[in-house]
Amino acid sequence: MALIVQKYGGSSVADAASIKRVAKRVAEAKRAGHDVVVVVSAMGDTTDELIDLATQVTPMPPQREMDILLTAGERISMSLLAMAIHNLGIDAKSFTGQQAGVLTDEAYGKARIIDVTPSRIRQTIAQGSVAIVAGFQGVNPSTNDVTTLGRGGSDTTAVALAAALKADVCEIYTDVDGVFTADPRIVPNARKLERVTYDEMLDLAASGAKVLVLRCVEYARRYGVPIHVRSSFSTHTGTLVTDEPAPEGETVEQPIIAGVAHDRSEAKITVVGVPDVPGKAARIFEVVAGAGVNIDMIVQNVSAASTGLTDISFTLPASDGAAGTAALTEHQPDIGFASLQYDDTIGKLSLVGAGMKSHPGVSARFFAALSEAGINIEMISTSEIRISVVTRADSLDEAVRAVHTAFDLDSASDEAVVYGGTGR
Amino acid sequence: MALIVQKYGGSSVADAASIKRVAKRVAEAKRAGHDVVVVVSAMGDTTDELIDLATQVTPMPPQREMDILLTAGERISMSLLAMAIHNLGIDAKSFTGQQAGVLTDEAYGKARIIDVTPSRIRQTIAQGSVAIVAGFQGVNPSTNDVTTLGRGGSDTTAVALAAALKADVCEIYTDVDGVFTADPRIVPNARKLERVTYDEMLDLAASGAKVLVLRCVEYARRYGVPIHVRSSFSTHTGTLVTDEPAPEGETVEQPIIAGVAHDRSEAKITVVGVPDVPGKAARIFEVVAGAGVNIDMIVQNVSAASTGLTDISFTLPASDGAAGTAALTEHQPDIGFASLQYDDTIGKLSLVGAGMKSHPGVSARFFAALSEAGINIEMISTSEIRISVVTRADSLDEAVRAVHTAFDLDSASDEAVVYGGTGR
Repeated sequence: MALIVQKYGGSSVADAASIKRVAKRVAEAKRAGHDVVVVVSAMGDTTDELIDLATQVTPMPPQREMDILLTAGERISMSLLAMAIHNLGIDAKSFTGQQAGVLTDEAYGKARIIDVTPSRIRQTIAQGSVAIVAGFQGVNPSTNDVTTLGRGGSDTTAVALAAALKADVCEIYTDVDGVFTADPRIVPNARKLERVTYDEMLDLAASGAKVLVLRCVEYARRYGVPIHVRSSFSTHTGTLVTDEPAPEGETVEQPIIAGVAHDRSEAKITVVGVPDVPGKAARIFEVVAGAGVNIDMIVQNVSAASTGLTDISFTLPASDGAAGTAALTEHQPDIGFASLQYDDTIGKLSLVGAGMKSHPGVSARFFAALSEAGINIEMISTSEIRISVVTRADSLDEAVRAVHTAFDLDSASDEAVVYGGTGR
Repeated sequence: MALIVQKYGGSSVADAASIKRVAKRVAEAKRAGHDVVVVVSAMGDTTDELIDLATQVTPMPPQREMDILLTAGERISMSLLAMAIHNLGIDAKSFTGQQAGVLTDEAYGKARIIDVTPSRIRQTIAQGSVAIVAGFQGVNPSTNDVTTLGRGGSDTTAVALAAALKADVCEIYTDVDGVFTADPRIVPNARKLERVTYDEMLDLAASGAKVLVLRCVEYARRYGVPIHVRSSFSTHTGTLVTDEPAPEGETVEQPIIAGVAHDRSEAKITVVGVPDVPGKAARIFEVVAGAGVNIDMIVQNVSAASTGLTDISFTLPASDGAAGTAALTEHQPDIGFASLQYDDTIGKLSLVGAGMKSHPGVSARFFAALSEAGINIEMISTSEIRISVVTRADSLDEAVRAVHTAFDLDSASDEAVVYGGTGR
C-alpha cells in the first residue's frame, strides 16, 4: 500500500464525462489499497474564459482580484471531481489551496510556495477518504488572501504536497504517454523514456520540452519526490523522473543521451558596434536584466582590431523582445553602441544526457550530424550534461531529426508511439 | 456621510456590461462621501449552470461539495465587480463570506448565520476603500468549511452585514421599483409603497410577495436594520422597510392597508371521513409535520352527527404535495380516515396592514368586496394585521383587483408604475 498524489490537468477534466473518467481512475487506485490525494486544474478553458471576462471589465485588473477570480476555476473542478468519486461509493472531500495548507508569499499571480502544512489532508486520508486539492492556488498567511502560483502551478502544487506528505510517488497525468526522446510531431519514431534523472529533466524542460515545467522539477529534485509522467487516456506506464537507480535487471545499461529538445519561443538581439572596452558587456546585460528580461545564450564576436568595436548577440524569450530592445535603446547614449538587430526567426536545439559527462566524443558526433545535414549553427552553449545550438527556425525540425538519428534514439519502427497533444 | 450596504442580485450583474453599470452606481455613492459595502450574488444563470454540471456528474451530490461548487459563482462576480470599481479610480477589495466573517452553523445548503465578525470589512472601509462581499455564503467555524445560506441568502448576507456594521441603511437593488400595493402584472394601477413596517413586510412576504424573503425581513426586524428596496435600473426612491415613523410632513396619514398579496404556490389536501374523536386532528398534523412539510391554513368541517365523521382540509406548498399525501397514506390505518383529496388549483389572497388592528370594519369591507365580485371563498385565516382567503386559482386575479379597489389602493391613473420583472 502506497501513498499516491495524482495530478490531472485541465484537458483531463474538461467536461462532466472527463471528470467521471478521472473519478474512475482515482477509484481504481483507491480500491487497489492505496491512499490517494488528487490535485486538479480548472476545467478545460475555464481559466481563459475568466481572463476574458476580466478584460471585458477593465484593461488593468488588480492582481489580488485576478487571483480571486481565477481560483474559482479549481473550486468548480475539485468539487465536481469529489462528487463524481463519491458517486462511485468512495468518500471524497475537496479542499482549496488554503484548506490544504499551501502557504505562499504575497506575489499575486506568481506566488512561490513557502510551506505546506497539510493537516486536513492527512486527516482525510487517515479516515480512508480521498482528498481532492485545488491546484495552482495557495494562501498568503500574513493577509489571508488567496494567491495563484502562475504557469505550471498545479504540477508544483502536486509535487509540493507529495513532498509534505512524503508520498511514494507523484503521478502527473497529461495528454501524452510520458517524456520522449524528442517531440514525436517532429520525430515520428521518438521513443518514450522509461526513466530520466532530475538533472536531465531540468535541462530538457529548460530547453523547450513542455511536459513538465522547470519549477516543478526543481521542487521534486530538492525534496527527492519521484514523478511519474503518464497519460490520463491510457494505462501505460509513463516516464519516471527520479535519481534512484533502476531495479536490478530492469535496465541493461544507462543510456548516454536522454533526448533532444527544441524551442521556437526565443529571439535574438544583436548589439552592433559596441566599444570593446571592459564593462560594456556587463552594462548591456545589466540594462536588459533591469527590464525584467532573462537572457539565455550569449555570443561575443572577436573584436576587429582596426575599429576597436565588437558585436554582442544574446537570446531571450521572444515575448520579452519589445521590453529588451526598448531598455537597450533607452541606454544607447551611455553604452555607446551603433545599432540593434532583432531576429525572431531562430530555433534552439538541445541534446541532453547525464551520460555525456563520462562519454567523450558526444560533441564531435553532435556537430558532425548537424554538419552532414547542412545545418548552419549561429550560437553554441554547453553545460555538463547539455549542448545547445541556435539555428534558423526553418531548419530546426531537420536538425532535430538528424541529431536524434545520430545518437541512435529512433525506436524500432513497429513500436507504437502515442502522442496525443501539445505536450503541455 | 453614511455607511451604506448595497446588495445587487444576479440579474444586476449578469454580464460584463451590467457589472460596469453597477460599478458606476457604487462609485457614485462613494463619491457622494458615503462608506460603501457591496454584497453581490452570482452572475445571472451561473448558479443554475453549476447545479446542472453537478447533476451531470452524479444524481446525489454530497451537500458539502455542492456548497463549495456553488460558492464559486459569487467568487467570480465579486472579483469582477471589484475590478470594475477599481477601473473607475476607486479602490475596491473583494471578500468571501469567510473573509467577511460570516459565521454559520454546519447545515450545508441552508446554513443559518450564527455571528458576523467583519473586522476586515471595517478595516477596508476605514482605509477609504469599497468592500465587496460574496453573498449567499459563509463558513462553519468548527470545520472551516464553506456553507451556503439557501434561498434569498444574499439578501440575508446584506442585512446581517448591515446589522454587524451598524450601517445606516441596507439597500436591496432588484429589478422592480420597490414594494407595491399589489403585483402590478395583476393590478396595473398598483401603487409603490413609500414605507412599510417590518410586520407588514413579514406578512406580505409570507403571503406571496416575492420582493424580499421572509428570513431577511425577520433578521432586519430583530436588529432594526432599515431596508431600502429599490431598482438597479433607475434612480427612483424605492420602498423603505422600517418601524421608524416617517419624518414630520412627509406623510399626512398612516395608511390602514399596506397591500394585497397573492400566492399560487399552495395546494389543498382534504382528509375525508375522519373519526370525530379527540386527538385525530393532532395526529394528522403530526404525520404531515413528520414528513418535513409546513402546513399553512386549516379548516375542519362541522361533524355530521349521524356519522360521527368529519373532513379536515389544510393547505401546504404544492412542492410538498407528494410528500404530504404519501405520509398520510402510509398512516391511513392508524388515523382511520376514508380517503384523501388533493387540489392544486387554489389561490390565496391576503390583505395586510398594521392599521387593521385599530380600524374596525376592515373585514366587513373585505368580504363585501369579494362577494360583490362573485368570488367563492373556500378557507379563511386571520392574524392581527392580515386576512387571508383561499379561492379557485382562476378567480384569484379578479379577487385581488376587487380588494385593491375596495380599499382605495389604486393609484391616480396618470402615475407611472415601473415594474420590470418577476418581483423575485
